Amino acid sequence: MKVNIINIGDELLIGQVVNSNAATMSQKLTAAGMEVNEVLVVGDRSDAITEALRRSLADSDAVLITGGLGPTKDDVTKKVLCDYFHSTLVENAEALANVERIFAARGYELTPINRQQAWVPACCTMINNDKGTAPCMWFEIARGEEAPQVVVAMPGVPHEMEYLMQSAVVPRLQQHFRTEVILNKNVLVQGIGESFLSDLIEPWELGLPSCIRLAYLPTAGMVKLRLTARGDNREALEDHIIREVKKLYLLAGQYIVGEDLETLPEAVAQMFRMNTRTLATAESCTGGSIAQRITALAGASHYYRGGIVAYSNDVKEQQLGVSHATLEAHGAVSEETVREMAEGVRQRLGADFGVATSGIAGPGGGSDEKPVGTVWMAVAGPQGTVTRLKHFGDDRLRTIDRACNEVFSMLIHQLKELLSQN
Amino acid sequence: MKVNIINIGDELLIGQVVNSNAATMSQKLTAAGMEVNEVLVVGDRSDAITEALRRSLADSDAVLITGGLGPTKDDVTKKVLCDYFHSTLVENAEALANVERIFAARGYELTPINRQQAWVPACCTMINNDKGTAPCMWFEIARGEEAPQVVVAMPGVPHEMEYLMQSAVVPRLQQHFRTEVILNKNVLVQGIGESFLSDLIEPWELGLPSCIRLAYLPTAGMVKLRLTARGDNREALEDHIIREVKKLYLLAGQYIVGEDLETLPEAVAQMFRMNTRTLATAESCTGGSIAQRITALAGASHYYRGGIVAYSNDVKEQQLGVSHATLEAHGAVSEETVREMAEGVRQRLGADFGVATSGIAGPGGGSDEKPVGTVWMAVAGPQGTVTRLKHFGDDRLRTIDRACNEVFSMLIHQLKELLSQN
Repeated sequence: MKVNIINIGDELLIGQVVNSNAATMSQKLTAAGMEVNEVLVVGDRSDAITEALRRSLADSDAVLITGGLGPTKDDVTKKVLCDYFHSTLVENAEALANVERIFAARGYELTPINRQQAWVPACCTMINNDKGTAPCMWFEIARGEEAPQVVVAMPGVPHEMEYLMQSAVVPRLQQHFRTEVILNKNVLVQGIGESFLSDLIEPWELGLPSCIRLAYLPTAGMVKLRLTARGDNREALEDHIIREVKKLYLLAGQYIVGEDLETLPEAVAQMFRMNTRTLATAESCTGGSIAQRITALAGASHYYRGGIVAYSNDVKEQQLGVSHATLEAHGAVSEETVREMAEGVRQRLGADFGVATSGIAGPGGGSDEKPVGTVWMAVAGPQGTVTRLKHFGDDRLRTIDRACNEVFSMLIHQLKELLSQN
Repeated sequence: MKVNIINIGDELLIGQVVNSNAATMSQKLTAAGMEVNEVLVVGDRSDAITEALRRSLADSDAVLITGGLGPTKDDVTKKVLCDYFHSTLVENAEALANVERIFAARGYELTPINRQQAWVPACCTMINNDKGTAPCMWFEIARGEEAPQVVVAMPGVPHEMEYLMQSAVVPRLQQHFRTEVILNKNVLVQGIGESFLSDLIEPWELGLPSCIRLAYLPTAGMVKLRLTARGDNREALEDHIIREVKKLYLLAGQYIVGEDLETLPEAVAQMFRMNTRTLATAESCTGGSIAQRITALAGASHYYRGGIVAYSNDVKEQQLGVSHATLEAHGAVSEETVREMAEGVRQRLGADFGVATSGIAGPGGGSDEKPVGTVWMAVAGPQGTVTRLKHFGDDRLRTIDRACNEVFSMLIHQLKELLSQN
C-alpha cells in the first residue's frame, strides 16, 4: 500500500520553515507497515496544489496533505479540494462545536473568519481536530473492485497533524487498506568510517536474503545501518532480521553501540541506565547544547544531575572552580581549563562523570594560534580525566553539533571501559 | 526562473532524517531571486529517480538534486543520471586528486570503492567538492533559443551541499539564467493571535499593491508576516516594501517585535544589544534549551553570562541558593522556587536579568495537583521579578519548546518596559 505526501506552504518553498511534518508522517506510516512513495512540497497556489494532487493520485493508494487550512487569505487548500471533488462547502455542526469550544476555553470571541473554519466540502468525512480549529477531511475515490483511493487533508501545525495522524488517520488507513508487513531494524555503529565499514561487512551484505534491504545512514560521529524487511509473514521477517543482525555482530561487533537507537545521546542514556552512574556537564562553547540533548530524552533525571553553562570566565572560576592562574596562563580555550571544568563540575555537582567543552564557535574570537572551530573537550570519571582537541571548521552551529557528538563519543568510550572492567 | 528540487534518500521516506537540505537550498535560491517551484522527495530507487527527474524537468528551468552519491551499494543517483543522459562513467582527474587529498589528510588508505567516487558521467561538467569525496555534477539540456535547462547533482551531506550551493551552484545559475527580482521582508508580531491580527490589518492587506504577496507564518508564541515582492525593478520593489511596512506599523505597531528576524531568541538578542544589559539562565525542566537557543546565535557572549541547569534539587540549593525550606514547603515546581532560582542566578552570575523555569516535562512525574506539562517561569530584573504559570500539555519536547518561547516573550516584555522608562 503506497502513500504520497503533499506538504503545502510558501514558507516551505522559501526555506523559512524546515519540513519536519514529512518526517513525522513518514515515521508513523512506516511503523504501520505502509510505504511512503514520495513527498511533494508545493506553495499556496491553487494550480500547483491541483496538479500535485492529480500527479500524486496517479501512483498511490492514498494521498496525505498538510497545510493551507488556516483562516487567513493565503490558505487555499480547502477551496482547491472542494473544486477538485466538485463539491460545495457546508458548515459542519461538530466542527463548529469544536471551534466554539476552543474559543470559549481561550476566552476569545468567535469572529466570522474563525467560524469559517467549520465549513468543509459536503462530500468529505469530517474528522474532528481536538487540538485546533481546522478540521481534518477524509475523501474517497472509487476505483472498481479495489478499496477506494483516499485523500486526507490535515492542518500543517505540527502537533495538530501529529495528533490527528496518531489518533485517527493511521488507524483508518490500516482498516481501509490491507497492508504489507514492513519491519525496520537499526544498528548504530561508531568509530569506523562508512567506506571502511562497507568493506568490512561486504560478505554479509552480499549474502542478505532478498526480503531484506540495507541502507547506510552516516551522520556526525556515527553510521546507522538500517535493515528493511518486507513480506507477508511477520514472524518469518523477524527471524530473518534476528539472524542477520547476529551475523553482523560477528563481523563488526566491536563498533556496534546499540540497536534501534537513533542518536548518540540515546546510546549514552541507555549506557547510563545500565551503569547506574550519574552525569554533570560544564559547557562553554556548546552553550547548553549537551544538556539540552540529554534532557530532551525522557528519564534523563535518573542519571543527569545538572550542569553549568560557563560562557564568561567569571562563571568558569566562581561556579566551576577553574583557577584564575590557569585562565591567565593558558586561556579559556585550553587543555588545562577544560580539564578543571570537567573535574570541577563532577566534584561540585556530586556526579560520577563530568564532561566539559571550551572552544571558539565563531564567527568571531579566533586567532592564528586558536582559529575559529578550535574546541577542547574533557571527560572526568572514576578512572581519571581524558581530554581531546579538535578543529571543527568555521560554521558555528556545525562546530557546536560536532563538539556535542565528540563529547558523547568520548563518554561512550569511557563507559564501555568501565563496563568491561567491572 | 523556476527551480525544482529533488532530495533522494530512503532515510527521508521513512522519516529517519528530517529534510533540512530542502530548506537550506530554498533559502539560498530565494535570496538569489530564484523561485522554488516544488520539492520532491523520492527513495534510492532507479525508477523513482528517473521519473522524478522527467517530471521535474517538465515544469522548471533547473533541477537541483541531492543524495545518493555515496560509495555504498544503496546509492544509485550517479548511475541513473548517466543512463538518463545516455553517457558513460569516466574517471575525472581533478575529482580523483580531490579524493586522494582528502584520504591523505585523514591518514586513510584509498580503497577501490572510494576511488569510484572520482568517476562521473562523461557529458557533465564536474564541479569539485572541497569538503567531501562525492563530486558535484552539472548537466545541460538544449531547448532552442532559451538558455539550456540545467540539472545539478550534489551530495546529500548537509554541510557539503551547503558549501557547493554557496560557492558554485547558485553563482553559476545566476550567470546561466536571467533572474527576476524577488524580495522578502519579515515582520515579527507577538502578543496577538493570527485571526485577530488578520482582522486588525485587513484594510491594509486588501490595499497591498499587486506586486506584493502576504503570508502569515504562525509559530509558537508569535506570528511572522512575510511580504514577498516580485518584479524587474529592485528599487521600485524596495520602495513598495518600505511604504507598506510603514503602514503596517500604524495599524499594529504595538505588537511588532522586530523586522527580518526569524525567532524570539533573535528578537531577545537584538533587544539586549540595544540595551547593553546582561542575562543569566536557571533551567530545570527546559534542561539547557534556553541557553542553547541563546548561544546558537553569534555574538551571544556580548550579553549572555552563563547559566545553571538545575535538574536535581541539590543543584537548585547549592548552585542557585534556593532555600531548603522553600523546596520542602512548596516543591520544586512552584512559584516560590522558580522565583528564587531566577533571583539566585541573577545575583550569583552578576547579570541584569535572570530567567528560570521549573516544571514537569513528562512523561513521568505528574500528579493531580501538578499534572505533566505544568511549568512555572520567572524573570528577575532591575524592576523586580515577574512569574507565570502555564500548562503546556503532555508532549515533552513541545512543553520544553513552549516554555522557552514563553520565557523569551516574558523577557521581551520586561525589556520593552525598561526601554520605555529610560
